[in-house]
Amino acid sequence: MSLISIEELERLTREKLPFARISKFRVEKLESGRATVRAPYSSEFLRPGGTISGPIMMGLADFAMYAAVLTRVGIVELALTTNFNINFLHRPKPGDLLAKARLIRLGKHLAMGEVEVYVDGHEDMVAHVTSTYSLPP
Amino acid sequence: MSLISIEELERLTREKLPFARISKFRVEKLESGRATVRAPYSSEFLRPGGTISGPIMMGLADFAMYAAVLTRVGIVELALTTNFNINFLHRPKPGDLLAKARLIRLGKHLAMGEVEVYVDGHEDMVAHVTSTYSLPP
Amino acid sequence: MSLISIEELERLTREKLPFARISKFRVEKLESGRATVRAPYSSEFLRPGGTISGPIMMGLADFAMYAAVLTRVGIVELALTTNFNINFLHRPKPGDLLAKARLIRLGKHLAMGEVEVYVDGHEDMVAHVTSTYSLPP
Amino acid sequence: MSLISIEELERLTREKLPFARISKFRVEKLESGRATVRAPYSSEFLRPGGTISGPIMMGLADFAMYAAVLTRVGIVELALTTNFNINFLHRPKPGDLLAKARLIRLGKHLAMGEVEVYVDGHEDMVAHVTSTYSLPP
Repeated sequence: MSLISIEELERLTREKLPFARISKFRVEKLESGRATVRAPYSSEFLRPGGTISGPIMMGLADFAMYAAVLTRVGIVELALTTNFNINFLHRPKPGDLLAKARLIRLGKHLAMGEVEVYVDGHEDMVAHVTSTYSLPP
Repeated sequence: MSLISIEELERLTREKLPFARISKFRVEKLESGRATVRAPYSSEFLRPGGTISGPIMMGLADFAMYAAVLTRVGIVELALTTNFNINFLHRPKPGDLLAKARLIRLGKHLAMGEVEVYVDGHEDMVAHVTSTYSLPP
Repeated sequence: MSLISIEELERLTREKLPFARISKFRVEKLESGRATVRAPYSSEFLRPGGTISGPIMMGLADFAMYAAVLTRVGIVELALTTNFNINFLHRPKPGDLLAKARLIRLGKHLAMGEVEVYVDGHEDMVAHVTSTYSLPP
Repeated sequence: MSLISIEELERLTREKLPFARISKFRVEKLESGRATVRAPYSSEFLRPGGTISGPIMMGLADFAMYAAVLTRVGIVELALTTNFNINFLHRPKPGDLLAKARLIRLGKHLAMGEVEVYVDGHEDMVAHVTSTYSLPP
Protein backbone atom coordinates (compact mmCIF):
# COMPACT_ATOMS: atom_id res chain seq x y z
CA MET A 1 0.00 0.00 0.00
CA SER A 2 1.19 3.49 -0.76
CA LEU A 3 2.10 5.70 2.21
CA ILE A 4 0.67 8.72 0.37
CA SER A 5 -2.59 9.24 -1.44
CA ILE A 6 -3.02 10.75 -4.89
CA GLU A 7 -4.66 13.76 -3.20
CA GLU A 8 -1.69 14.35 -0.90
CA LEU A 9 0.75 14.14 -3.78
CA GLU A 10 -1.32 16.48 -5.94
CA ARG A 11 -1.48 19.00 -3.10
CA LEU A 12 2.31 18.77 -2.70
CA THR A 13 2.62 19.31 -6.45
CA ARG A 14 0.39 22.39 -6.42
CA GLU A 15 2.15 23.96 -3.46
CA LYS A 16 5.76 22.98 -3.88
CA LEU A 17 6.59 21.57 -7.30
CA PRO A 18 6.01 24.34 -9.83
CA PHE A 19 7.61 22.44 -12.70
CA ALA A 20 5.15 19.56 -12.34
CA ARG A 21 2.24 21.95 -11.75
CA ILE A 22 2.96 24.10 -14.80
CA SER A 23 3.45 21.02 -16.97
CA LYS A 24 0.06 19.77 -15.66
CA PHE A 25 1.45 16.38 -14.63
CA ARG A 26 -1.29 14.21 -13.12
CA VAL A 27 -0.89 11.27 -10.79
CA GLU A 28 -2.81 8.27 -12.09
CA LYS A 29 -1.90 5.46 -9.72
CA LEU A 30 0.14 4.87 -6.57
CA GLU A 31 1.03 1.49 -5.11
CA SER A 32 3.81 0.51 -2.75
CA GLY A 33 7.00 1.22 -4.71
CA ARG A 34 5.19 2.11 -7.92
CA ALA A 35 3.69 5.21 -9.50
CA THR A 36 2.08 6.07 -12.83
CA VAL A 37 1.89 9.73 -13.86
CA ARG A 38 0.54 11.42 -16.96
CA ALA A 39 1.55 14.53 -18.92
CA PRO A 40 -1.50 15.69 -20.87
CA TYR A 41 -0.50 16.61 -24.40
CA SER A 42 0.38 20.22 -25.12
CA SER A 43 1.75 21.69 -28.32
CA GLU A 44 4.42 23.25 -26.12
CA PHE A 45 6.02 19.84 -25.83
CA LEU A 46 6.93 19.72 -29.51
CA ARG A 47 10.34 19.60 -31.11
CA PRO A 48 11.14 19.92 -34.81
CA GLY A 49 9.85 16.89 -36.70
CA GLY A 50 6.67 16.78 -34.62
CA THR A 51 8.30 14.79 -31.86
CA ILE A 52 8.08 15.52 -28.14
CA SER A 53 10.93 17.38 -26.49
CA GLY A 54 13.28 15.46 -24.23
CA PRO A 55 13.04 17.73 -21.18
CA ILE A 56 9.32 17.05 -20.77
CA MET A 57 9.97 13.33 -20.75
CA MET A 58 12.84 13.84 -18.30
CA GLY A 59 10.72 16.02 -16.02
CA LEU A 60 7.84 13.55 -16.12
CA ALA A 61 10.09 10.57 -15.41
CA ASP A 62 11.76 12.40 -12.54
CA PHE A 63 8.36 13.22 -11.06
CA ALA A 64 7.19 9.61 -11.44
CA MET A 65 10.28 8.36 -9.66
CA TYR A 66 9.78 10.91 -6.87
CA ALA A 67 6.20 9.67 -6.50
CA ALA A 68 7.37 6.06 -6.35
CA VAL A 69 9.82 6.96 -3.58
CA LEU A 70 7.11 8.75 -1.59
CA THR A 71 4.84 5.70 -1.75
CA ARG A 72 7.38 4.01 0.50
CA VAL A 73 8.70 6.82 2.71
CA GLY A 74 5.70 9.17 2.90
CA ILE A 75 5.93 12.91 2.29
CA VAL A 76 9.66 13.63 2.32
CA GLU A 77 10.06 16.91 0.53
CA LEU A 78 13.82 16.83 0.58
CA ALA A 79 14.26 13.58 -1.30
CA LEU A 80 16.50 14.76 -4.15
CA THR A 81 17.65 13.19 -7.40
CA THR A 82 21.35 12.36 -7.39
CA ASN A 83 21.72 10.45 -10.66
CA PHE A 84 19.35 10.28 -13.62
CA ASN A 85 20.11 8.33 -16.78
CA ILE A 86 17.72 8.30 -19.73
CA ASN A 87 17.78 6.44 -23.03
CA PHE A 88 15.46 7.73 -25.75
CA LEU A 89 14.17 4.77 -27.71
CA HIS A 90 11.49 5.88 -30.17
CA ARG A 91 10.47 9.31 -31.38
CA PRO A 92 7.20 9.85 -29.57
CA LYS A 93 4.16 10.71 -31.62
CA PRO A 94 2.18 13.65 -30.24
CA GLY A 95 -0.08 12.49 -27.40
CA ASP A 96 -0.31 12.20 -23.65
CA LEU A 97 2.80 10.79 -22.03
CA LEU A 98 2.61 8.09 -19.36
CA ALA A 99 5.53 7.40 -17.03
CA LYS A 100 5.55 4.21 -14.97
CA ALA A 101 8.07 4.20 -12.15
CA ARG A 102 9.14 1.26 -10.03
CA LEU A 103 11.54 1.22 -7.09
CA ILE A 104 14.30 -1.36 -7.41
CA ARG A 105 16.09 -0.66 -4.16
CA LEU A 106 15.15 1.37 -1.11
CA GLY A 107 17.95 1.83 1.40
CA LYS A 108 18.21 4.16 4.35
CA HIS A 109 19.99 6.89 2.40
CA LEU A 110 19.38 6.06 -1.24
CA ALA A 111 16.51 4.91 -3.40
CA MET A 112 17.02 3.58 -6.92
CA GLY A 113 14.45 2.74 -9.52
CA GLU A 114 13.50 2.71 -13.15
CA VAL A 115 10.87 4.50 -15.20
CA GLU A 116 9.31 3.52 -18.50
CA VAL A 117 7.81 6.29 -20.62
CA TYR A 118 5.08 5.64 -23.21
CA VAL A 119 2.76 7.66 -25.39
CA ASP A 120 -0.76 6.78 -24.27
CA GLY A 121 -2.28 4.31 -26.70
CA HIS A 122 1.01 3.19 -28.22
CA GLU A 123 2.98 0.09 -27.30
CA ASP A 124 6.52 1.25 -27.96
CA MET A 125 8.47 2.46 -24.96
CA VAL A 126 9.71 5.93 -25.92
CA ALA A 127 12.22 6.37 -23.11
CA HIS A 128 13.77 4.33 -20.31
CA VAL A 129 15.17 5.89 -17.16
CA THR A 130 17.16 4.74 -14.17
CA SER A 131 17.44 7.16 -11.33
CA THR A 132 18.77 7.48 -7.80
CA TYR A 133 17.27 9.60 -5.04
CA SER A 134 19.02 10.57 -1.81
CA LEU A 135 16.88 10.51 1.31
CA PRO A 136 17.51 12.97 4.15
CA PRO A 137 18.43 11.44 7.53
CA MET B 1 34.42 29.09 -35.32
CA SER B 2 30.78 28.27 -34.75
CA LEU B 3 28.71 27.30 -37.81
CA ILE B 4 25.70 29.09 -36.31
CA SER B 5 25.34 32.52 -34.77
CA ILE B 6 23.63 33.34 -31.50
CA GLU B 7 20.90 35.09 -33.51
CA GLU B 8 20.22 32.02 -35.64
CA LEU B 9 20.02 29.79 -32.59
CA GLU B 10 17.71 32.20 -30.78
CA ARG B 11 15.44 32.34 -33.81
CA LEU B 12 15.36 28.54 -33.93
CA THR B 13 14.52 28.56 -30.22
CA ARG B 14 11.65 31.01 -30.64
CA GLU B 15 10.15 29.18 -33.57
CA LYS B 16 10.78 25.54 -32.84
CA LEU B 17 11.87 24.86 -29.26
CA PRO B 18 8.99 25.86 -27.00
CA PHE B 19 10.53 24.34 -23.88
CA ALA B 20 13.63 26.54 -24.19
CA ARG B 21 11.54 29.56 -25.17
CA ILE B 22 9.13 29.26 -22.25
CA SER B 23 11.98 28.68 -19.82
CA LYS B 24 13.62 31.86 -21.24
CA PHE B 25 16.95 30.12 -21.92
CA ARG B 26 19.45 32.55 -23.46
CA VAL B 27 22.51 31.72 -25.51
CA GLU B 28 25.57 33.49 -24.11
CA LYS B 29 28.43 32.18 -26.19
CA LEU B 30 29.08 29.86 -29.13
CA GLU B 31 32.45 28.58 -30.26
CA SER B 32 33.35 25.57 -32.34
CA GLY B 33 32.23 22.59 -30.25
CA ARG B 34 31.28 24.71 -27.23
CA ALA B 35 28.22 26.59 -26.00
CA THR B 36 27.27 28.51 -22.87
CA VAL B 37 23.58 29.07 -22.15
CA ARG B 38 21.78 30.79 -19.29
CA ALA B 39 18.47 30.18 -17.52
CA PRO B 40 17.44 33.49 -15.87
CA TYR B 41 16.21 32.82 -12.37
CA SER B 42 12.49 32.30 -11.87
CA SER B 43 10.67 31.30 -8.71
CA GLU B 44 9.04 28.61 -10.83
CA PHE B 45 12.31 26.72 -10.74
CA LEU B 46 12.10 26.08 -7.01
CA ARG B 47 11.83 22.82 -5.16
CA PRO B 48 11.16 22.33 -1.43
CA GLY B 49 14.14 23.51 0.59
CA GLY B 50 14.66 26.49 -1.72
CA THR B 51 16.71 24.51 -4.17
CA ILE B 52 16.25 24.50 -7.95
CA SER B 53 14.29 21.67 -9.53
CA GLY B 54 16.15 19.03 -11.45
CA PRO B 55 14.14 19.20 -14.68
CA ILE B 56 15.16 22.81 -15.30
CA MET B 57 18.81 21.85 -15.00
CA MET B 58 18.21 18.87 -17.28
CA GLY B 59 16.40 20.99 -19.85
CA LEU B 60 19.10 23.64 -19.78
CA ALA B 61 21.91 21.11 -20.08
CA ASP B 62 20.16 19.37 -22.97
CA PHE B 63 19.74 22.72 -24.74
CA ALA B 64 23.41 23.61 -24.17
CA MET B 65 24.50 20.29 -25.63
CA TYR B 66 22.21 20.80 -28.64
CA ALA B 67 23.78 24.22 -29.15
CA ALA B 68 27.29 22.75 -28.95
CA VAL B 69 26.36 20.18 -31.60
CA LEU B 70 24.96 22.86 -33.92
CA THR B 71 28.20 24.89 -33.69
CA ARG B 72 29.79 22.03 -35.62
CA VAL B 73 27.04 20.80 -37.92
CA GLY B 74 24.98 23.95 -38.51
CA ILE B 75 21.19 24.08 -38.20
CA VAL B 76 20.15 20.43 -38.00
CA GLU B 77 16.73 20.42 -36.46
CA LEU B 78 16.49 16.67 -36.22
CA ALA B 79 19.54 16.12 -34.07
CA LEU B 80 17.99 14.21 -31.15
CA THR B 81 19.21 13.19 -27.72
CA THR B 82 19.72 9.44 -27.42
CA ASN B 83 21.35 9.17 -23.98
CA PHE B 84 21.52 11.74 -21.20
CA ASN B 85 23.17 11.06 -17.84
CA ILE B 86 23.20 13.67 -15.08
CA ASN B 87 24.80 13.70 -11.65
CA PHE B 88 23.53 16.32 -9.21
CA LEU B 89 26.46 17.51 -7.12
CA HIS B 90 25.40 20.47 -4.94
CA ARG B 91 21.99 21.86 -4.09
CA PRO B 92 21.89 25.02 -6.15
CA LYS B 93 21.15 28.29 -4.40
CA PRO B 94 18.48 30.38 -6.14
CA GLY B 95 20.05 32.30 -9.02
CA ASP B 96 20.62 32.21 -12.77
CA LEU B 97 21.86 28.88 -14.04
CA LEU B 98 24.73 28.64 -16.50
CA ALA B 99 25.35 25.51 -18.56
CA LYS B 100 28.66 25.08 -20.36
CA ALA B 101 28.66 22.34 -22.99
CA ARG B 102 31.63 20.89 -24.80
CA LEU B 103 31.67 18.26 -27.55
CA ILE B 104 33.96 15.33 -26.84
CA ARG B 105 33.33 13.34 -30.00
CA LEU B 106 31.62 14.22 -33.24
CA GLY B 107 31.10 11.28 -35.58
CA LYS B 108 28.97 11.00 -38.68
CA HIS B 109 25.95 9.62 -36.84
CA LEU B 110 26.56 10.42 -33.19
CA ALA B 111 27.83 13.35 -31.16
CA MET B 112 28.85 12.99 -27.52
CA GLY B 113 29.74 15.68 -25.05
CA GLU B 114 29.59 16.90 -21.50
CA VAL B 115 27.89 19.82 -19.79
CA GLU B 116 28.78 21.55 -16.53
CA VAL B 117 26.00 23.43 -14.74
CA TYR B 118 26.69 26.28 -12.31
CA VAL B 119 24.73 28.92 -10.46
CA ASP B 120 25.99 32.26 -11.75
CA GLY B 121 28.40 33.78 -9.26
CA HIS B 122 29.12 30.51 -7.42
CA GLU B 123 32.11 28.25 -7.96
CA ASP B 124 30.59 24.86 -7.14
CA MET B 125 29.43 22.79 -10.07
CA VAL B 126 25.81 21.91 -9.30
CA ALA B 127 25.36 19.24 -11.96
CA HIS B 128 27.44 17.32 -14.48
CA VAL B 129 25.99 15.80 -17.63
CA THR B 130 27.17 13.51 -20.38
CA SER B 131 24.95 13.20 -23.38
CA THR B 132 24.76 11.63 -26.81
CA TYR B 133 22.98 13.09 -29.84
CA SER B 134 22.10 11.19 -32.99
CA LEU B 135 22.56 13.06 -36.25
CA PRO B 136 20.26 12.41 -39.21
CA PRO B 137 21.94 11.15 -42.41
CA MET C 1 13.13 -18.64 -29.77
CA SER C 2 16.79 -17.73 -29.60
CA LEU C 3 18.66 -17.41 -32.93
CA ILE C 4 21.76 -18.90 -31.30
CA SER C 5 22.26 -21.95 -29.14
CA ILE C 6 24.20 -22.10 -25.88
CA GLU C 7 26.79 -24.24 -27.68
CA GLU C 8 27.30 -21.65 -30.43
CA LEU C 9 27.70 -18.85 -27.91
CA GLU C 10 30.12 -20.88 -25.82
CA ARG C 11 32.19 -21.64 -28.90
CA LEU C 12 32.26 -17.93 -29.77
CA THR C 13 33.33 -17.21 -26.20
CA ARG C 14 36.17 -19.74 -26.30
CA GLU C 15 37.46 -18.53 -29.65
CA LYS C 16 36.88 -14.81 -29.61
CA LEU C 17 36.02 -13.42 -26.17
CA PRO C 18 39.06 -13.96 -23.97
CA PHE C 19 37.69 -11.83 -21.11
CA ALA C 20 34.60 -14.00 -20.77
CA ARG C 21 36.62 -17.19 -21.26
CA ILE C 22 39.24 -16.34 -18.64
CA SER C 23 36.54 -15.28 -16.18
CA LYS C 24 34.83 -18.65 -16.84
CA PHE C 25 31.47 -17.06 -17.62
CA ARG C 26 28.87 -19.72 -18.46
CA VAL C 27 25.69 -19.31 -20.44
CA GLU C 28 22.74 -20.75 -18.51
CA LYS C 29 19.75 -19.85 -20.62
CA LEU C 30 18.88 -18.17 -23.92
CA GLU C 31 15.42 -17.12 -25.05
CA SER C 32 14.37 -14.58 -27.63
CA GLY C 33 15.61 -11.26 -26.25
CA ARG C 34 16.78 -12.74 -22.94
CA ALA C 35 19.92 -14.34 -21.57
CA THR C 36 21.10 -15.60 -18.19
CA VAL C 37 24.83 -16.04 -17.61
CA ARG C 38 26.81 -17.16 -14.59
CA ALA C 39 30.23 -16.23 -13.20
CA PRO C 40 31.39 -19.13 -11.00
CA TYR C 41 32.86 -17.79 -7.79
CA SER C 42 36.59 -17.20 -7.66
CA SER C 43 38.61 -15.61 -4.87
CA GLU C 44 40.08 -13.40 -7.60
CA PHE C 45 36.81 -11.51 -7.67
CA LEU C 46 37.28 -10.14 -4.16
CA ARG C 47 37.67 -6.56 -3.03
CA PRO C 48 38.55 -5.34 0.47
CA GLY C 49 35.69 -6.06 2.86
CA GLY C 50 35.06 -9.46 1.27
CA THR C 51 32.83 -8.00 -1.43
CA ILE C 52 33.04 -8.75 -5.14
CA SER C 53 34.88 -6.32 -7.39
CA GLY C 54 32.88 -4.09 -9.68
CA PRO C 55 34.68 -4.93 -12.93
CA ILE C 56 33.65 -8.59 -12.75
CA MET C 57 30.00 -7.56 -12.40
CA MET C 58 30.43 -5.09 -15.26
CA GLY C 59 32.08 -7.68 -17.47
CA LEU C 60 29.42 -10.26 -16.69
CA ALA C 61 26.57 -7.83 -17.31
CA ASP C 62 28.12 -6.72 -20.60
CA PHE C 63 28.44 -10.35 -21.68
CA ALA C 64 24.83 -11.09 -20.70
CA MET C 65 23.61 -8.12 -22.72
CA TYR C 66 25.70 -9.23 -25.71
CA ALA C 67 24.14 -12.68 -25.41
CA ALA C 68 20.64 -11.17 -25.27
CA VAL C 69 21.36 -9.20 -28.46
CA LEU C 70 22.61 -12.30 -30.26
CA THR C 71 19.44 -14.22 -29.41
CA ARG C 72 17.69 -11.80 -31.76
CA VAL C 73 20.26 -11.07 -34.46
CA GLY C 74 22.31 -14.29 -34.53
CA ILE C 75 26.10 -14.39 -34.43
CA VAL C 76 27.13 -10.79 -35.07
CA GLU C 77 30.65 -10.50 -33.78
CA LEU C 78 30.89 -6.78 -34.32
CA ALA C 79 27.98 -5.77 -32.12
CA LEU C 80 29.72 -3.32 -29.78
CA THR C 81 28.70 -1.62 -26.54
CA THR C 82 28.20 2.11 -26.95
CA ASN C 83 26.80 3.08 -23.55
CA PHE C 84 26.83 1.13 -20.30
CA ASN C 85 25.40 2.47 -17.04
CA ILE C 86 25.57 0.47 -13.83
CA ASN C 87 24.19 1.13 -10.35
CA PHE C 88 25.64 -0.95 -7.54
CA LEU C 89 22.87 -1.69 -5.05
CA HIS C 90 24.10 -4.14 -2.41
CA ARG C 91 27.56 -5.34 -1.52
CA PRO C 92 27.56 -8.86 -2.91
CA LYS C 93 28.45 -11.69 -0.58
CA PRO C 94 30.99 -14.13 -2.05
CA GLY C 95 29.25 -16.57 -4.36
CA ASP C 96 28.43 -17.25 -8.00
CA LEU C 97 27.08 -14.23 -9.84
CA LEU C 98 24.04 -14.47 -12.11
CA ALA C 99 23.27 -11.81 -14.70
CA LYS C 100 19.85 -11.73 -16.33
CA ALA C 101 19.65 -9.58 -19.44
CA ARG C 102 16.56 -8.49 -21.30
CA LEU C 103 16.32 -6.48 -24.53
CA ILE C 104 14.06 -3.45 -24.26
CA ARG C 105 14.47 -2.16 -27.79
CA LEU C 106 15.96 -3.66 -30.90
CA GLY C 107 16.32 -1.27 -33.81
CA LYS C 108 18.24 -1.62 -37.05
CA HIS C 109 21.35 0.08 -35.72
CA LEU C 110 20.98 0.03 -31.96
CA ALA C 111 19.88 -2.40 -29.29
CA MET C 112 19.10 -1.32 -25.74
CA GLY C 113 18.40 -3.45 -22.73
CA GLU C 114 18.79 -3.94 -19.02
CA VAL C 115 20.61 -6.46 -16.88
CA GLU C 116 19.97 -7.49 -13.29
CA VAL C 117 22.86 -9.00 -11.35
CA TYR C 118 22.36 -11.30 -8.35
CA VAL C 119 24.44 -13.54 -6.15
CA ASP C 120 23.12 -17.06 -6.65
CA GLY C 121 20.88 -18.03 -3.75
CA HIS C 122 20.28 -14.44 -2.56
CA GLU C 123 17.26 -12.30 -3.33
CA ASP C 124 18.80 -8.85 -3.32
CA MET C 125 19.75 -7.42 -6.69
CA VAL C 126 23.40 -6.43 -6.35
CA ALA C 127 23.66 -4.34 -9.51
CA HIS C 128 21.39 -2.96 -12.22
CA VAL C 129 22.62 -2.11 -15.70
CA THR C 130 21.25 -0.41 -18.78
CA SER C 131 23.26 -0.73 -21.90
CA THR C 132 23.23 0.12 -25.59
CA TYR C 133 24.81 -1.92 -28.38
CA SER C 134 25.47 -0.71 -31.89
CA LEU C 135 24.80 -3.19 -34.66
CA PRO C 136 26.89 -3.19 -37.84
CA PRO C 137 24.99 -2.57 -41.11
CA MET D 1 49.66 16.76 -3.34
CA SER D 2 48.43 13.18 -3.32
CA LEU D 3 47.73 11.61 0.09
CA ILE D 4 49.03 8.27 -1.20
CA SER D 5 52.18 7.37 -3.09
CA ILE D 6 52.39 5.19 -6.17
CA GLU D 7 54.16 2.58 -4.03
CA GLU D 8 51.36 2.49 -1.46
CA LEU D 9 48.73 2.13 -4.17
CA GLU D 10 50.67 -0.61 -5.93
CA ARG D 11 51.03 -2.49 -2.65
CA LEU D 12 47.27 -2.17 -2.07
CA THR D 13 46.73 -3.46 -5.59
CA ARG D 14 48.97 -6.49 -5.10
CA GLU D 15 47.43 -7.40 -1.77
CA LYS D 16 43.78 -6.51 -2.14
CA LEU D 17 42.73 -5.81 -5.72
CA PRO D 18 43.15 -9.04 -7.67
CA PHE D 19 41.35 -7.74 -10.77
CA ALA D 20 43.82 -4.87 -11.15
CA ARG D 21 46.77 -7.11 -10.28
CA ILE D 22 45.87 -9.82 -12.78
CA SER D 23 45.22 -7.25 -15.49
CA LYS D 24 48.68 -5.79 -14.70
CA PHE D 25 47.33 -2.25 -14.27
CA ARG D 26 50.15 0.17 -13.41
CA VAL D 27 49.87 3.52 -11.70
CA GLU D 28 51.69 6.17 -13.71
CA LYS D 29 50.93 9.40 -11.89
CA LEU D 30 49.09 10.64 -8.80
CA GLU D 31 48.28 14.25 -8.00
CA SER D 32 45.66 15.71 -5.71
CA GLY D 33 42.34 14.63 -7.26
CA ARG D 34 43.94 13.09 -10.34
CA ALA D 35 45.36 9.75 -11.36
CA THR D 36 46.75 8.21 -14.54
CA VAL D 37 46.89 4.43 -14.83
CA ARG D 38 48.03 2.12 -17.60
CA ALA D 39 46.92 -1.28 -18.82
CA PRO D 40 49.85 -2.85 -20.70
CA TYR D 41 48.62 -4.45 -23.88
CA SER D 42 47.71 -8.11 -23.80
CA SER D 43 46.18 -10.20 -26.55
CA GLU D 44 43.67 -11.27 -23.90
CA PHE D 45 42.04 -7.86 -24.21
CA LEU D 46 40.90 -8.48 -27.76
CA ARG D 47 37.40 -8.65 -29.15
CA PRO D 48 36.34 -9.71 -32.66
CA GLY D 49 37.48 -7.13 -35.20
CA GLY D 50 40.79 -6.65 -33.38
CA THR D 51 39.34 -4.10 -30.99
CA ILE D 52 39.82 -4.09 -27.21
CA SER D 53 37.08 -5.56 -25.03
CA GLY D 54 34.88 -3.20 -23.07
CA PRO D 55 35.33 -4.81 -19.64
CA ILE D 56 39.06 -4.09 -19.62
CA MET D 57 38.39 -0.42 -20.30
CA MET D 58 35.69 -0.43 -17.61
CA GLY D 59 37.97 -2.10 -15.08
CA LEU D 60 40.83 0.26 -15.86
CA ALA D 61 38.62 3.35 -15.63
CA ASP D 62 37.15 2.15 -12.34
CA PHE D 63 40.63 1.61 -10.95
CA ALA D 64 41.76 5.07 -12.13
CA MET D 65 38.77 6.67 -10.44
CA TYR D 66 39.48 4.73 -7.23
CA ALA D 67 43.07 6.00 -7.36
CA ALA D 68 41.89 9.59 -7.87
CA VAL D 69 39.64 9.26 -4.81
CA LEU D 70 42.49 7.90 -2.68
CA THR D 71 44.73 10.84 -3.60
CA ARG D 72 42.31 12.95 -1.56
CA VAL D 73 41.17 10.65 1.24
CA GLY D 74 44.19 8.37 1.71
CA ILE D 75 43.96 4.57 1.88
CA VAL D 76 40.24 3.89 2.29
CA GLU D 77 39.74 0.32 1.24
CA LEU D 78 35.99 0.44 1.51
CA ALA D 79 35.39 3.24 -0.96
CA LEU D 80 32.97 1.54 -3.36
CA THR D 81 31.61 2.43 -6.78
CA THR D 82 27.89 3.28 -6.69
CA ASN D 83 27.31 4.50 -10.24
CA PHE D 84 29.48 4.05 -13.32
CA ASN D 85 28.50 5.33 -16.77
CA ILE D 86 30.69 4.76 -19.81
CA ASN D 87 30.40 5.91 -23.40
CA PHE D 88 32.53 4.09 -25.95
CA LEU D 89 33.69 6.59 -28.56
CA HIS D 90 36.21 4.98 -30.90
CA ARG D 91 37.17 1.37 -31.45
CA PRO D 92 40.57 1.18 -29.81
CA LYS D 93 43.48 -0.10 -31.83
CA PRO D 94 45.56 -2.72 -30.01
CA GLY D 95 47.99 -1.02 -27.63
CA ASP D 96 48.46 0.02 -24.03
CA LEU D 97 45.45 1.75 -22.54
CA LEU D 98 45.79 4.92 -20.48
CA ALA D 99 43.03 6.10 -18.15
CA LYS D 100 43.14 9.64 -16.78
CA ALA D 101 40.80 10.24 -13.86
CA ARG D 102 39.86 13.55 -12.30
CA LEU D 103 37.65 14.19 -9.28
CA ILE D 104 34.85 16.67 -9.93
CA ARG D 105 33.29 16.63 -6.49
CA LEU D 106 34.43 15.27 -3.16
CA GLY D 107 31.81 15.34 -0.44
CA LYS D 108 31.77 13.65 2.94
CA HIS D 109 29.90 10.59 1.72
CA LEU D 110 30.24 10.65 -2.06
CA ALA D 111 32.95 11.36 -4.60
CA MET D 112 32.20 11.94 -8.26
CA GLY D 113 34.60 12.24 -11.15
CA GLU D 114 35.30 11.53 -14.78
CA VAL D 115 37.80 9.35 -16.59
CA GLU D 116 39.14 9.64 -20.12
CA VAL D 117 40.51 6.49 -21.74
CA TYR D 118 43.05 6.57 -24.57
CA VAL D 119 45.25 4.13 -26.44
CA ASP D 120 48.83 5.21 -25.77
CA GLY D 121 50.19 7.12 -28.73
CA HIS D 122 46.78 7.92 -30.23
CA GLU D 123 44.86 11.18 -29.83
CA ASP D 124 41.29 9.92 -30.01
CA MET D 125 39.54 9.36 -26.70
CA VAL D 126 38.27 5.78 -26.86
CA ALA D 127 35.94 5.94 -23.85
CA HIS D 128 34.57 8.51 -21.43
CA VAL D 129 33.38 7.62 -17.95
CA THR D 130 31.60 9.35 -15.12
CA SER D 131 31.52 7.56 -11.83
CA THR D 132 30.42 7.96 -8.23
CA TYR D 133 32.10 6.43 -5.20
CA SER D 134 30.59 6.14 -1.74
CA LEU D 135 32.93 6.81 1.17
CA PRO D 136 32.51 4.97 4.46
CA PRO D 137 31.82 7.16 7.53
